[in-house]
Amino acid sequence: MKLLEDRILKDGQVLPGGILKVDGFLNHRIDPQLFYDMAEELKRRFRDEGVNKILTIEASGISLAIMTGYVFGCPMVFAKKSRSKNISRDVWSVEVESFTHGNTNTVMVSKEYLGPEDRVLIVDDFLATGAALRGLKELVEMAGGSVAGAGIAIEKVFQGGGDLLRKEGMRVESLARIASMTDDSITFC
Amino acid sequence: MKLLEDRILKDGQVLPGGILKVDGFLNHRIDPQLFYDMAEELKRRFRDEGVNKILTIEASGISLAIMTGYVFGCPMVFAKKSRSKNISRDVWSVEVESFTHGNTNTVMVSKEYLGPEDRVLIVDDFLATGAALRGLKELVEMAGGSVAGAGIAIEKVFQGGGDLLRKEGMRVESLARIASMTDDSITFC
Repeated sequence: MKLLEDRILKDGQVLPGGILKVDGFLNHRIDPQLFYDMAEELKRRFRDEGVNKILTIEASGISLAIMTGYVFGCPMVFAKKSRSKNISRDVWSVEVESFTHGNTNTVMVSKEYLGPEDRVLIVDDFLATGAALRGLKELVEMAGGSVAGAGIAIEKVFQGGGDLLRKEGMRVESLARIASMTDDSITFC
Repeated sequence: MKLLEDRILKDGQVLPGGILKVDGFLNHRIDPQLFYDMAEELKRRFRDEGVNKILTIEASGISLAIMTGYVFGCPMVFAKKSRSKNISRDVWSVEVESFTHGNTNTVMVSKEYLGPEDRVLIVDDFLATGAALRGLKELVEMAGGSVAGAGIAIEKVFQGGGDLLRKEGMRVESLARIASMTDDSITFC
């Protein structure tokens, strides 16, 4: 998606350790119109998949997921990273490692909100090692639902997670696919 | 806002300990169309305030905040609860106690994304003791910006935080204002 690639080139920055800093428009300060446009593009790509639920993981996946739910006209569920007082004890849960935060979280969805009738589009802002996507896919399968695919804003293709999931049969659509990054250049696939 | 009050009566549930469970449409499974409609109502109420930035706190404030930013046509910033690898060290930060989670978090916004030119509408899903709102207001003031007001989905008026903030001069607009709750009834103001 050219709009997103142009924005990454304009406002993105490569930090030491393979971190792409896009927090000026994607995951700290958010450009809502860009998110609406990305959601429209995901709708265009997945319109024939019978999607009736959007699933993401807190916190930075929520922005794209609610816009995608809005455009699809279906509910969005976000998996939670910790048990709070107002979540039911009846949850589907998995362990997910975070590349950005360098830790492991228990990620859970209330059983009330994910079930066998769900045809799920998984949405996230980043795809790197694929750990989050894999965890969310597992939650859908535990619930007896089916995964229509994954819609991602930025895929760091060189980290291999996306291609591994594609080999395993998941349809993964990323709106910007980064082949390589150096301190002063970003190359898209 | 009648639409939201009706939805609370239909799908909300009062749990022991003064917890209102609305995770079927507000803070776990999300109804995106409802959020769009709430954002429109916030726009109607704050349209003359010169708002150029929406500020919220992760995670459950993000859904309403991005929709509000979309409707206002301005950026949204969400304050983060922990330092991750991709946030700048130059941050405005405060301590905020969470009623829902029963803990205290350091809440921060990168100095790049909050400054003296900002006229900020603070947005959140819940207002109870007002601790989160107060923290976000403090961040805006540290940055030299001004607070246009706060737009809240559900205010638990009986917890007093909203009225205290109003007394201190903040314009607080809540779309559903709960006067009292018992195990089998919810009364709006």
